[in-house]
Amino acid sequence: MATIKEVAREAGVSVGTVSMVLNHADYGSAAIRAKVEAAVAKMHYVPSEIGRNLSLQRTQMVGIIVPTVAHPFFAELVEGLEESLFHLGYKTMLCCTQKKENAEHTFVTMLKRRTMDGIIMGAHSLDVSLYENLNRPVLAFDRYLSDNIPIVHCDHQLGGQLAAEAFLQHDCHHIVQIAGAQIVRTPAHGYHQACNEVMQAHGAQTDLVSLPWNEFSFAGALQLAREIFTRYPDVDGILGADMSIAACLQVAGERGIRVPEALRLVAYDGTFMTQTGSQPLTAVRQPIEELAELAAAKMVHMITGEQDTLPWVLPPHLLPGRTC
Amino acid sequence: MATIKEVAREAGVSVGTVSMVLNHADYGSAAIRAKVEAAVAKMHYVPSEIGRNLSLQRTQMVGIIVPTVAHPFFAELVEGLEESLFHLGYKTMLCCTQKKENAEHTFVTMLKRRTMDGIIMGAHSLDVSLYENLNRPVLAFDRYLSDNIPIVHCDHQLGGQLAAEAFLQHDCHHIVQIAGAQIVRTPAHGYHQACNEVMQAHGAQTDLVSLPWNEFSFAGALQLAREIFTRYPDVDGILGADMSIAACLQVAGERGIRVPEALRLVAYDGTFMTQTGSQPLTAVRQPIEELAELAAAKMVHMITGEQDTLPWVLPPHLLPGRTC
Repeated sequence: MATIKEVAREAGVSVGTVSMVLNHADYGSAAIRAKVEAAVAKMHYVPSEIGRNLSLQRTQMVGIIVPTVAHPFFAELVEGLEESLFHLGYKTMLCCTQKKENAEHTFVTMLKRRTMDGIIMGAHSLDVSLYENLNRPVLAFDRYLSDNIPIVHCDHQLGGQLAAEAFLQHDCHHIVQIAGAQIVRTPAHGYHQACNEVMQAHGAQTDLVSLPWNEFSFAGALQLAREIFTRYPDVDGILGADMSIAACLQVAGERGIRVPEALRLVAYDGTFMTQTGSQPLTAVRQPIEELAELAAAKMVHMITGEQDTLPWVLPPHLLPGRTC
Repeated sequence: MATIKEVAREAGVSVGTVSMVLNHADYGSAAIRAKVEAAVAKMHYVPSEIGRNLSLQRTQMVGIIVPTVAHPFFAELVEGLEESLFHLGYKTMLCCTQKKENAEHTFVTMLKRRTMDGIIMGAHSLDVSLYENLNRPVLAFDRYLSDNIPIVHCDHQLGGQLAAEAFLQHDCHHIVQIAGAQIVRTPAHGYHQACNEVMQAHGAQTDLVSLPWNEFSFAGALQLAREIFTRYPDVDGILGADMSIAACLQVAGERGIRVPEALRLVAYDGTFMTQTGSQPLTAVRQPIEELAELAAAKMVHMITGEQDTLPWVLPPHLLPGRTC
């Protein structure tokens, strides 16, 4: 493979000129640029990306931290982030935290060492002190990390209201809400609060049950669904994440409870898995693809230091199904 | 932040010695290493990852190329690869090809330029000439890329036999198999062939229908399911990927066809989505997590030049459900 010295000799310019022409689109006269580009082509020169990044202090890489990708919500989120970042000229490094200790720590170290340009953080970590005083681009996705870390999320207030309206339309009197662990600081708790307020204003009974921390499995959702039917035999409406509601539908079937006649189910998130069962789930759909596109754009603006007037919050909508 | 020169001065050694101690665990006497490490700690020195990689010609990064992660099979695969690579000291760069032109090309260029150490390729690309004569670590996952690119996959022959045995146990006479696009060169076509052979040997009728190329959506699966029920009204067994079989179950419900009594369904892959519907799918389960672990280990051995005696193929097993 040709070296940069051989290219410089071929073009009749200095090594520094070759480097500047290759790394800065606005450098040099048209004649100089043409000479360098001809020499690069003739010599089949491939510039070393590592060397180039060393001079620019950029890697064009963004780290995405999520609990897992083997879960429909995070799978759709990561898919959207990777696509949007790609179109903005950035590559995606993936880190899943659910099964590993210290995985995040590695990414934060890489950010400090400038092996990556920024981090989009959507994991459910409890200790977020790691992200304080970093003074490097960090964007939170649906999580509160620290006062000076901005956050992109869905309008969960509206999401909770949409769910409540669906229940009220069918005269539900006793709603159970399945929430994530309350110790995780996330705006997503807001949909339970909003639904709760609307339902209570209409005289309905509401109860909240919580999944264990970092529990995203279907097995965990099934177990909690069984507990709910035992503890609240008169429940006539359940709101929770897609996985939880799919589990409730399965357990209702086992117990001979007819959905939607005797029990209304509303899934929150509205990922593809609300569609793939034999009875599609009624759902509040987060605009996951649009949220990902927004987060990617915000991230790149943080890296390049640009200002934008894009929103931080996007609205959800109700996705019709056959469970409410 | 302290520079390497300041660390060297503090330790009373040369800059080269500091660099060698930090980058090579076996370099230098214990006394020298202790002096350098004490100086690094005292000065709060953070070595530049980019500079270090420049000297090692390694980035400790592996690229994973898949069609999409918003699909249960690839989601579970990427989850497993990322986890295994992490434990082996490698970071994961993700590339999804389904929605983007030339995404792969970028990764191959990065591999050539040594911005990444290796690629695990599981996308359904038709033009794979990109991967020929690379002379860099490339591992194919369930795809034929070229004669000198090794491939990790499930024993699809056995998978097809397991499915056929399940159908025969229930006296199926007319099987329809839903395959991926035949133009993609993958060992996965083998399960259809194996199932076909066993069924025909028992006098059953078999038909094969194919999804369009790179079609992984539930909407696409639903459309094909409707066509199958119209074209083959006497079908009593269907084999296909999880998404396709979930679609068949939904359409069977719409048409009043009772599963499993009048129609036996066997899903291939056995991802989490076979469990989350109200009627869990009977499935041939690929050992996705173990395949991912194997592929990650093989990839790292290709990068480091080590030999291993690990297998290239792992067996699937039948996962009981309520559709066959």
